[in-house]
Amino acid sequence: MKYITGIPESTKKRVVIIGGGFAGLQLAKSLRKSEFQIVLLDKNNYHQFQPLFYQVATAGLEPSAITFPLRKALQNQKNIHFRIASLEKVEPETNQIKTDLGMLNYDYLVLAIGADTNYFNNESIRQHATPMKSLSEAINLRNVMLSNFEKALNETEQSKVDSLLNFVIVGGGPTGTELAGALAEMKKHILPKDYPELDFSKMKIILLEASDKILNGYSDNSSKKGEKYLDKLGVEVQTNTFVQNYDGKKVELASGDTLATDTLIWAAGVKGNLVKGLEPDMIDKGGRLKVNRFNQVGNQEGDLTNVYAIGDLALMKTEKFEHGHPQVAQVAIQQASLLSKNLQSKEKGKALKPFKYSDKGSLATIGRNLAVADLPFISFSGFTAWILWLFVHLMAILGVKNRLFVFINWVWSYFTYDQSLRLLINPNLESKKSELMDRSTPQTNLHPQ
Amino acid sequence: MKYITGIPESTKKRVVIIGGGFAGLQLAKSLRKSEFQIVLLDKNNYHQFQPLFYQVATAGLEPSAITFPLRKALQNQKNIHFRIASLEKVEPETNQIKTDLGMLNYDYLVLAIGADTNYFNNESIRQHATPMKSLSEAINLRNVMLSNFEKALNETEQSKVDSLLNFVIVGGGPTGTELAGALAEMKKHILPKDYPELDFSKMKIILLEASDKILNGYSDNSSKKGEKYLDKLGVEVQTNTFVQNYDGKKVELASGDTLATDTLIWAAGVKGNLVKGLEPDMIDKGGRLKVNRFNQVGNQEGDLTNVYAIGDLALMKTEKFEHGHPQVAQVAIQQASLLSKNLQSKEKGKALKPFKYSDKGSLATIGRNLAVADLPFISFSGFTAWILWLFVHLMAILGVKNRLFVFINWVWSYFTYDQSLRLLINPNLESKKSELMDRSTPQTNLHPQ
Repeated sequence: MKYITGIPESTKKRVVIIGGGFAGLQLAKSLRKSEFQIVLLDKNNYHQFQPLFYQVATAGLEPSAITFPLRKALQNQKNIHFRIASLEKVEPETNQIKTDLGMLNYDYLVLAIGADTNYFNNESIRQHATPMKSLSEAINLRNVMLSNFEKALNETEQSKVDSLLNFVIVGGGPTGTELAGALAEMKKHILPKDYPELDFSKMKIILLEASDKILNGYSDNSSKKGEKYLDKLGVEVQTNTFVQNYDGKKVELASGDTLATDTLIWAAGVKGNLVKGLEPDMIDKGGRLKVNRFNQVGNQEGDLTNVYAIGDLALMKTEKFEHGHPQVAQVAIQQASLLSKNLQSKEKGKALKPFKYSDKGSLATIGRNLAVADLPFISFSGFTAWILWLFVHLMAILGVKNRLFVFINWVWSYFTYDQSLRLLINPNLESKKSELMDRSTPQTNLHPQ
Repeated sequence: MKYITGIPESTKKRVVIIGGGFAGLQLAKSLRKSEFQIVLLDKNNYHQFQPLFYQVATAGLEPSAITFPLRKALQNQKNIHFRIASLEKVEPETNQIKTDLGMLNYDYLVLAIGADTNYFNNESIRQHATPMKSLSEAINLRNVMLSNFEKALNETEQSKVDSLLNFVIVGGGPTGTELAGALAEMKKHILPKDYPELDFSKMKIILLEASDKILNGYSDNSSKKGEKYLDKLGVEVQTNTFVQNYDGKKVELASGDTLATDTLIWAAGVKGNLVKGLEPDMIDKGGRLKVNRFNQVGNQEGDLTNVYAIGDLALMKTEKFEHGHPQVAQVAIQQASLLSKNLQSKEKGKALKPFKYSDKGSLATIGRNLAVADLPFISFSGFTAWILWLFVHLMAILGVKNRLFVFINWVWSYFTYDQSLRLLINPNLESKKSELMDRSTPQTNLHPQ
């Protein structure tokens, strides 16, 4: 097999980073002034800001506002080569990887391909549920929602109309909770104006959670407040509820109950994207790769010392985090920053520093003026938490213009109670696909954030 | 066949408008306070601002900034029903139409489905060229362009790299001219920064025009200036040049010359979208429907007096416009406004007013600070024309927020020499298509604008 074209052999050691999400992009940028030659591969040409996918899905934000072209993010960084490519296999014994563009040698390999939706091997759900784990899926969810309302107009049977208007969200984590809240806001302020012919008092938004509370992992106070806020917005929350089956029309619960809906949104869990070529015992539960405190893949000595995993894909067990760290942006960014230093230390023969997560806290927004915040020493909710949420997310968005556009969008929506992005756009509908698009059509495992 | 659901029978007369482009939307809004029941059908749920497609294609504007949800545009308008639907056939003898949603009766039918790309029956070109006559096609063109550069990185053969970097645009009207200019600006300011590994001095942008000058129909001064500006930006303009064939790699010209390119952009002409069910002799050249001075389809007495065509689809021959009016937004809007009055006059038994086009002039922008303007009594070019172009287009965009976002985008690009929308986004890549999307996958003739 040929090698990837145009990446020069150099006297510099080569760091290959797979995935341009929070972890991969942070690492690439942190190594800006290093002595390495860096190759970044991603299956998209853009970085995605996952925490705001739900706002794209509910027509609040434009896809481009929460994505950023990787080439632009890396402009002026001389030691880097970026390629749109999918990882097919790692060959640790020869220090090379196989991609759809060709082979590539590495001195250090960093796997940062994140996690994807976990259907827990339930084929009926995988086939019929709507996921929201990538920008494309968020856009698709927006299309599904808007299509439902359009279809409802053409139905005469009330049960069919109900099924189209009902939305069942599975998973009471921040993703499911925030999405449920945003949908409820849409139902209240926007949909009746857009569809005066439909009766939205009949529209149900149901949030199902398998554990005994939503926002599990947050403080008790936040969980309770979150549920209270959702209740206030008209979202029906059902905890201790397992979904067993879904055929596209009917949700079957473990209790034997059923719910009729055309739309089951699955936000119930993630699993690490599969990396082929590694020893099976390196993969732990949730499909995550076992790493030691230095993010080296495998925990024992003698394991792969030049293959690293960071971010959602990595499972690092510590005393404090027996089951690994939470799969959030902060962990990814902190691991990437430390790895940048460690790689450079290693080259200089210096000692490596073990990773220690500095938890800055958790936030979740439920609706207008309604959010919960768990900071290291304080937990609070309501308007102040909401403002903090807005500020933190705004500052985390890549690019000054994106930040400005998101800010204007938020201010605009806040005062007008409106979002103007209710577009059913499908670029491939009427036009010819580009080959590059086709090339990546089959599901690959290279799916950063 | 069933009738479209949910549109109540009423004592009011029903006006059915097909197409929510400049003509159809203007008519729907103008009839806001009329005594009619209005039904608007479009195959999309949004209005498209076609004059700025080329900026979407060149990553300067976000698709959402130049589109507007039709439901939002018509919010609070009580006498209207909107449906996403495709016209399949008109049945004038029974005053009804057939759509993919069902049948519908009308008292008045207004056809405003615009025009689509005209390949002049050249099958090789239709198959391999890239059009830019809808938002989807503009997004697709952006994807094609960005994909080309990514692919060029993976080519070792210089001739293949050249073919990927060369862009041949056919049609020297405002669309082709503006696109050529925008591409040249990209080549100059953005691409070398994004792709430092590619040599853009080799990238050619070639504009082919069949007549003896670009911007034909503009003043001589504007044509000459336009060509001068393009030359200044490095665009190769070839007039009196016919394209005979294109196989996806090689453009064959009537002169026998060939050009090697992976990308032939076809902006050489439009033809009216086909309306089935009308007498063949009602369709004139360019696929346009013959209308009289009142936009009634057919010219002689005894023809269809309650079927109208307005906008790009209509061919109204007058003394001044022997071959019909130009297919531009101004004609569409003016015809719609007049028709709104005429329909109401007709109901009141008053005399109808014949259409008279008030030409406000033509503008075309070629690049930064470079535009041409032909106003009724004066023709000028350069910075002043460019500012006028910006202002006129900004004011014509639907929605205050869109206007604001386009304005910020333009100001931003102007000062930073950058555009940040270079995203290869394909919503259908990894996700499940919604049924509504699938439903409309086959090419239909209901294509407003």
